[in-house]
Amino acid sequence: MTQQIDQGTVDAEQWRALAQQLRVDSIRSSTGASSGHPTSSMSAAELMAVLLGKYLRYDFDAPGNPANDHLIFSKGHASPLLYSMYKAAGAITDGELMTYREFGSRLQGHPTPALPWVDVATGSLGQGLPIGVGVALAGKYLDKLPYRVWVLCGDSEMAEGSMWEAFQHASFYKLDNLIAVLDMNRLGQTRETMDGWHGDRYAARAEAFGWHAIQVNGHDPEEIDHAYAEALEQEGVPTLVVAQTKKGRGVSFLEDVDGMHGKPVKPDDEAKALEELGADNNLLVEVQKPDSGGETFTAGLTGELKLPTWELGDSEATRNAYGKALKAIGAAREDVVAMDGEVSNSTKSEEFAETYPDRYFEMFIAEQQMIAAAVGMSVRKRVPFASTFAAFLSRAYDFIRMAAISGANLRLSGSHAGVSIGEDGPSQMALEDLAMMRAVHGSTVLHPSDANQTAKLVAEMADTDGISFLRTLRPSTPVIYGPDEEFPIGGSKVVRSSNDDKVTVVAAGITVHNAIEACEQLRREGANVRLIDAYSVKPIDADTLRLAVRATGGRLVVAEDHWPEGGLGEAVLSALAGEGAEGLRFEHLAVKIMPGSGSPDELMDAAGINANHIAEAVRGLLNR
Amino acid sequence: MTQQIDQGTVDAEQWRALAQQLRVDSIRSSTGASSGHPTSSMSAAELMAVLLGKYLRYDFDAPGNPANDHLIFSKGHASPLLYSMYKAAGAITDGELMTYREFGSRLQGHPTPALPWVDVATGSLGQGLPIGVGVALAGKYLDKLPYRVWVLCGDSEMAEGSMWEAFQHASFYKLDNLIAVLDMNRLGQTRETMDGWHGDRYAARAEAFGWHAIQVNGHDPEEIDHAYAEALEQEGVPTLVVAQTKKGRGVSFLEDVDGMHGKPVKPDDEAKALEELGADNNLLVEVQKPDSGGETFTAGLTGELKLPTWELGDSEATRNAYGKALKAIGAAREDVVAMDGEVSNSTKSEEFAETYPDRYFEMFIAEQQMIAAAVGMSVRKRVPFASTFAAFLSRAYDFIRMAAISGANLRLSGSHAGVSIGEDGPSQMALEDLAMMRAVHGSTVLHPSDANQTAKLVAEMADTDGISFLRTLRPSTPVIYGPDEEFPIGGSKVVRSSNDDKVTVVAAGITVHNAIEACEQLRREGANVRLIDAYSVKPIDADTLRLAVRATGGRLVVAEDHWPEGGLGEAVLSALAGEGAEGLRFEHLAVKIMPGSGSPDELMDAAGINANHIAEAVRGLLNR
Repeated sequence: MTQQIDQGTVDAEQWRALAQQLRVDSIRSSTGASSGHPTSSMSAAELMAVLLGKYLRYDFDAPGNPANDHLIFSKGHASPLLYSMYKAAGAITDGELMTYREFGSRLQGHPTPALPWVDVATGSLGQGLPIGVGVALAGKYLDKLPYRVWVLCGDSEMAEGSMWEAFQHASFYKLDNLIAVLDMNRLGQTRETMDGWHGDRYAARAEAFGWHAIQVNGHDPEEIDHAYAEALEQEGVPTLVVAQTKKGRGVSFLEDVDGMHGKPVKPDDEAKALEELGADNNLLVEVQKPDSGGETFTAGLTGELKLPTWELGDSEATRNAYGKALKAIGAAREDVVAMDGEVSNSTKSEEFAETYPDRYFEMFIAEQQMIAAAVGMSVRKRVPFASTFAAFLSRAYDFIRMAAISGANLRLSGSHAGVSIGEDGPSQMALEDLAMMRAVHGSTVLHPSDANQTAKLVAEMADTDGISFLRTLRPSTPVIYGPDEEFPIGGSKVVRSSNDDKVTVVAAGITVHNAIEACEQLRREGANVRLIDAYSVKPIDADTLRLAVRATGGRLVVAEDHWPEGGLGEAVLSALAGEGAEGLRFEHLAVKIMPGSGSPDELMDAAGINANHIAEAVRGLLNR
Repeated sequence: MTQQIDQGTVDAEQWRALAQQLRVDSIRSSTGASSGHPTSSMSAAELMAVLLGKYLRYDFDAPGNPANDHLIFSKGHASPLLYSMYKAAGAITDGELMTYREFGSRLQGHPTPALPWVDVATGSLGQGLPIGVGVALAGKYLDKLPYRVWVLCGDSEMAEGSMWEAFQHASFYKLDNLIAVLDMNRLGQTRETMDGWHGDRYAARAEAFGWHAIQVNGHDPEEIDHAYAEALEQEGVPTLVVAQTKKGRGVSFLEDVDGMHGKPVKPDDEAKALEELGADNNLLVEVQKPDSGGETFTAGLTGELKLPTWELGDSEATRNAYGKALKAIGAAREDVVAMDGEVSNSTKSEEFAETYPDRYFEMFIAEQQMIAAAVGMSVRKRVPFASTFAAFLSRAYDFIRMAAISGANLRLSGSHAGVSIGEDGPSQMALEDLAMMRAVHGSTVLHPSDANQTAKLVAEMADTDGISFLRTLRPSTPVIYGPDEEFPIGGSKVVRSSNDDKVTVVAAGITVHNAIEACEQLRREGANVRLIDAYSVKPIDADTLRLAVRATGGRLVVAEDHWPEGGLGEAVLSALAGEGAEGLRFEHLAVKIMPGSGSPDELMDAAGINANHIAEAVRGLLNR
């Protein structure tokens, strides 16, 4: 029989009963699915019972209510617990709970925003807390709403460095609206964690990073209650509740038993487990809606967009154009925010940072936290632009991958692409970024060659859902497009063409300029080339490519400042494959040797992607 | 005039003079190059003068001497300081120093093993310390030699989570042979660091992670001397020396001045700077060779390799075959070591871990530290195999990228590829790993479909230089190859062929089995298919592909459990591009929608990569 729990009058006995119910439902759902993590759910049952039973402020009928608290399961494998909470809150039925992990169910193996109350996908450990930092940043500095961000963390994931990036940034930004709850159940997947039940160690680390830390018995509702109350009282510091718990708590043959990670209770043992838990109530928590409704943040265009422009023949680095365009977009739209990995004078996000300091978040040298913060901003309906050297976005690839599963809307700008950066050497050169970013579900990958093109593309990114990536150049390049030209995503520019083109050259970024120089050489020799600037690497302009390749007898050169794999060359081949590849004669100029230091010209020569190499490749094809 | 410094009798005055010389040379080399980081070098001059002048044990004539200390500049941008040290040690001439950052010079913008005394490339921050942990692990547990690992860290990079992974692992493994020297110069690239000169914070964090911490004035040689002596006395704990320093120290217009990051002194100001530093000596440090020479570790095949075998028709997951093969290789070779991201019962490295616990290093849920440890093992001439879910290797992509620049020899095994994992959902599915790993310079990418093939490939990986990656499957698959078949890297297997093949199907891993099923369907319909198992995705067997596509009238289906970008499909297109693509009719079956949970069969059906979809694609091509 259904019993109501009122958040205002809840007592320890009700918390205990609710915790047992959460355990029962965690077992039932995972045994039903024949997979899942009941034991990792059971350890945190009291922690979540007290949260749901008293502290959480959430309007389950209106997940978009801007004043709702946020609850993120950083230990995403405890999804049975989360879904059991949703059932206890009346948000899903028992029937739906039992669809756990079925094909088509919203209740996936790890939480995803297929459920409207889930902000972000988790399941790759160490990501929920940094994303929580992003949501809390938005809450404190942008929304200025009193919602709290509650993050349930596992102890195994405390080994992930990204957690400590989150600790540092939460403290630096004084995020007293962030409460991390550490379910210290001691047991990882195959063995004890590095710190076992040494809660003092976690507490000392948190304090050394500037947090308030509270140690509790994670199975004692009253201790948990006091800890949460204390957390809410903190001013200017985030709180870590270190809760000593037992994995599989409440069932004799699961409790604190090694080797039970990720194993559902066998059907034959289910009745015994449920009997030990002894809960046959159907408790329903009347979760209070947030005090202050607030307005949903809906800022769109708040002023006229005046993009910067350059005159033909000017010279400007595309990274500079990014900076100036971002500033212009910041003037036109108050939902645009920016962040950078402490290289804003290189990526040029500094222009935005200086003009809109309230909407700029310095993320220091912590790329994972930077992407996580951008995801958090996306949760809060902002339009985040995050920038660093494109090479260093590789540091956050797992976060970018997961952001796609979250359906987050991120705009990433990666500067210092390729060997054209020159003397700094290979550690600073992005040579895998196109491959990495193309292989993100639903991504948009842009690589402009001049300043006007860059500015237009940055403006389009602001209106583009999903994850978009802009690859910018360190050196200045000539402005080759007038300020009124358009560069739709998915399009391309035919830079050179005639009625007598013999070879198609496809380039992007720096190689467009190398190819223009090659075209001049070749024209003097009487060979006309159709040159395509494929600034939109994904989606790519397959129609224009196909037309060009047909018009030039299948002769095709692709030149890119990137490793040969997964970049522009393969994007072009994929676009042509199918019908367009009839009789293709293809030369791929890409970086095939490990570069060192040197001038951009020396390095592009050594890599085989400069004007001479392009011209030579064209000449070679003329004879085929 | 050259003056010798004897490590046995060095005094504070000599250290000071040496520090000034290191500053002078840092300025001269970077001003000569018109780029580089003199100010970040100058802050650490005394720290490195005391180290070089007294503590470092290194045979510069024999960088391969196994007893040499290791010195890693985690703050790789301070390369002018490192190269100035090499000059002061007599390892390079002043002439070579002045080639800094020139094309072809060994003295690149950031350190790389182009210089024989540099273990690993740095320049992506936060990597030197975790790699130092790997070297120290090898020193303490494998080499059992008394060398020390000295790591110079910057304060900006303390924001990288990977640094804290290193702190945790160094303490867990009691690495008293590891000394981290923190050059706390307060200033980052664009602003003050999050912690400024609060050395107490860094010390408290290090202590909370189980380290010994010592705070010093980083410009006082005697304090530094005492700190290093104290560090060497520690037993069972690593030491962090927190040194308060000033960026640009010693030159009035550089010292502690913001906005001077990464800026060389202008030629016009050089004389003034050098005059302020006042060093016109040519000090040469007689660096002592290590006490104990030791033997270079050269273990190769130490026993006969007896790979596990399976019979045709058996069923086994390729991840299981990996585990059994790795154990067998461990028996045959004592240079093989393994590590895992605390999922060894999923990746199946547990078999090795149980049998060779002395050569297994549990890296817990810290993938960056895992790859860094593998790099450190490679520095120490071991043959490391590191494993986790392939999806989570994305967490360490920057480390893998940098490992390629280091020329490290790593073997990576990534399990749980693709949607075929089933119920756990997209967070656990590797769908970008082929793209990611192909776009690593010099990499080898393998994706076996059966157990015997897996075992042979694992054995080949042990003999393969560079970075090799094995992609394994979660579910069991039928054994389709006999135990005596060979699977050379760069090869492929023609699984089905006849004299009348109409379409070529290329598959790898799970899709080989789907394709076999499709072939059976199609054969019943009278359509013969040539099926190629492209287990070697990079390098790929272009000859066999070309032959097959020609024999089947250009009709080609590629089926892969991966996003469409950068994986098997594009690898095949790249291999065929050039001559082979005459009249290609291409269908690419890959994962184009975001998967959820479900059974492997349901998910492969939804993704369009199961037998029915392959058969349908073949039928479609038959009519083209």
